[in-house]
Amino acid sequence: MTIQKERVGIIGSGNWGSAVAKIIGENVQKHPETFEYPVRQWVFEEDYKGQPLTKVINESHENPKYLPGIRLPNNVQAEPDLIKTCEDCTMLVFVLPHQFVRGVCDDLQGKVNPSVKAISLIKGLEIKPDQVTLFSQEIGRRLHLTHPVAALSGANIADEVAKERFCESTIGCTSAQAGELFHRLFATPYFRINVIGDPVGVELCGALKNVVAVAAGISDGLGYGDNTKAALIRIGLMEMRKFAKSFFGGVEDVTFFESCGVADLITTCAGGRNRRVAEAFAKTGKPIDVLEKEMLNGQKLQGTLTAMEVHQFLTHHQMTKAFPLFDAVYRVIYEKAPLDTIVRNL
Amino acid sequence: MTIQKERVGIIGSGNWGSAVAKIIGENVQKHPETFEYPVRQWVFEEDYKGQPLTKVINESHENPKYLPGIRLPNNVQAEPDLIKTCEDCTMLVFVLPHQFVRGVCDDLQGKVNPSVKAISLIKGLEIKPDQVTLFSQEIGRRLHLTHPVAALSGANIADEVAKERFCESTIGCTSAQAGELFHRLFATPYFRINVIGDPVGVELCGALKNVVAVAAGISDGLGYGDNTKAALIRIGLMEMRKFAKSFFGGVEDVTFFESCGVADLITTCAGGRNRRVAEAFAKTGKPIDVLEKEMLNGQKLQGTLTAMEVHQFLTHHQMTKAFPLFDAVYRVIYEKAPLDTIVRNL
Repeated sequence: MTIQKERVGIIGSGNWGSAVAKIIGENVQKHPETFEYPVRQWVFEEDYKGQPLTKVINESHENPKYLPGIRLPNNVQAEPDLIKTCEDCTMLVFVLPHQFVRGVCDDLQGKVNPSVKAISLIKGLEIKPDQVTLFSQEIGRRLHLTHPVAALSGANIADEVAKERFCESTIGCTSAQAGELFHRLFATPYFRINVIGDPVGVELCGALKNVVAVAAGISDGLGYGDNTKAALIRIGLMEMRKFAKSFFGGVEDVTFFESCGVADLITTCAGGRNRRVAEAFAKTGKPIDVLEKEMLNGQKLQGTLTAMEVHQFLTHHQMTKAFPLFDAVYRVIYEKAPLDTIVRNL
Repeated sequence: MTIQKERVGIIGSGNWGSAVAKIIGENVQKHPETFEYPVRQWVFEEDYKGQPLTKVINESHENPKYLPGIRLPNNVQAEPDLIKTCEDCTMLVFVLPHQFVRGVCDDLQGKVNPSVKAISLIKGLEIKPDQVTLFSQEIGRRLHLTHPVAALSGANIADEVAKERFCESTIGCTSAQAGELFHRLFATPYFRINVIGDPVGVELCGALKNVVAVAAGISDGLGYGDNTKAALIRIGLMEMRKFAKSFFGGVEDVTFFESCGVADLITTCAGGRNRRVAEAFAKTGKPIDVLEKEMLNGQKLQGTLTAMEVHQFLTHHQMTKAFPLFDAVYRVIYEKAPLDTIVRNL
């Protein structure tokens, strides 16, 4: 009897997707007994200086558009065809902006082996007034997968990971066997992985942290000191935990001690665009959409968006009072409440 | 039957002691049904511009030497006599440098009501190769107190607290009734107090955090990014928890989610002298004692001292390997190990 090796496909090729492709390509070569050599990466085809980006990547072994200066392993093959990328794959890594998830899943319907082991590195949630959708669950449902989809999240700035700076990340996976495979696929001496059994908690942390970062930015903008900021980070972490435990089953306290919890929150509240734009909001009084134009070339800020969605969701469940920090961020950003509301009624 | 009111004494009058005296004096006035109006504060008598410091404080209602520019409430009375300060007190607040604790306790032997409710705001531990001494327990033992001594610790930079900037703190107290009294004594709208049942965990956090701050400073000195620093803070928090649970009973996981745990650690690793000196150590290669002279006017750095004591203690218990970050800090500072040891073998 021969053991079938795992064939890995990566869906997405942005900054984070490219950093992850480097790690996956290297680990696949390190474990030939476990993985097949080639790793296909779906790259949304676009023009790069007059050439197709996939051609540039496959010839230069670098993604000059989204991760310039970082060499990608030879076994990572950029592939413009989504279906072809996933063909025969036994493991799929979803690492793309959340607004593309549904379209990609629709294109993949019936084309993916239902027993594939999938993991989501997608940041963000879809929050409707009456429900919260996790993209990992959305992927599993739309592709009719038999295993629950895992999630990876942590204090991981793509460029620092690509430069092999030491950091940690957390994988939430309900299957011990799949968890071990994902650990082999992602873990390196500089990219430390803890595998835990709580994918929901891992994924929720990755989205809710941005609301807390907005509070931290407002605190910075007001010139409050390290004490106040640390208090807001701590209270924010506790509201993230309360939110997760109030509306989802199986979320564990220890998850918030992991890289996806406390560590990612610290990083996001130290640097990070959400903190930065919120600081400018507090200092200049300019509306967020103006600052998005000025500071993010019109890109939407995730933290304020999530704050509004969370507010609508909590209002629907009549639970805004149970989350005073989330509520304060919403009221400061969208209801012109005084800035120091973020440290009131906590 | 008349209910006896609480008479509060404060032992210590440095920067933190003075900030705390302001809060206590105000809260005592807010709760006349609970506390007697006068609050005596023991001030080590010294000369201030030709006058006794106690006289200056009592006339100006300000401690110009240790907390200039902050008004102290009228009911706070600076008292040069330690015994007189504690006379008839039913509540005692110990807020002095740890090297003075034993001397003060010796002077107070037999002079303090054994049923007094005492709380320690003292930072640091006495770690000998074979045992760790908590100052709260040391105080209780030396004064033969009948109630366990409580502990207060949190992300509290004295000057920011004195300026009434929002922050949090944690009180560890095994008695619910005493805990409620301490809450009434310390809590304000800008100084938020959580009372928990784990005084040992609270006190340990306040000392061990400084070892982690040294690691954070070395990381900064090496130019590592936010990811790495957040990882070191998280791993440090987990080693603090492991140390507390390995060598002390009754320590709870949740304690490390409190202000004394994660929040104080974040503040200490963001600013703070331990981080700053360690950063200079990594950048200049100068020995710590030279940097102490240059940066701290010869004062000893707590974090490196604690790192050595912890190392001796762990060596005695043959458990250095179980605390790779604490061990790495010791080896980098005292054994000339390469700086990047702090991110190896974690």
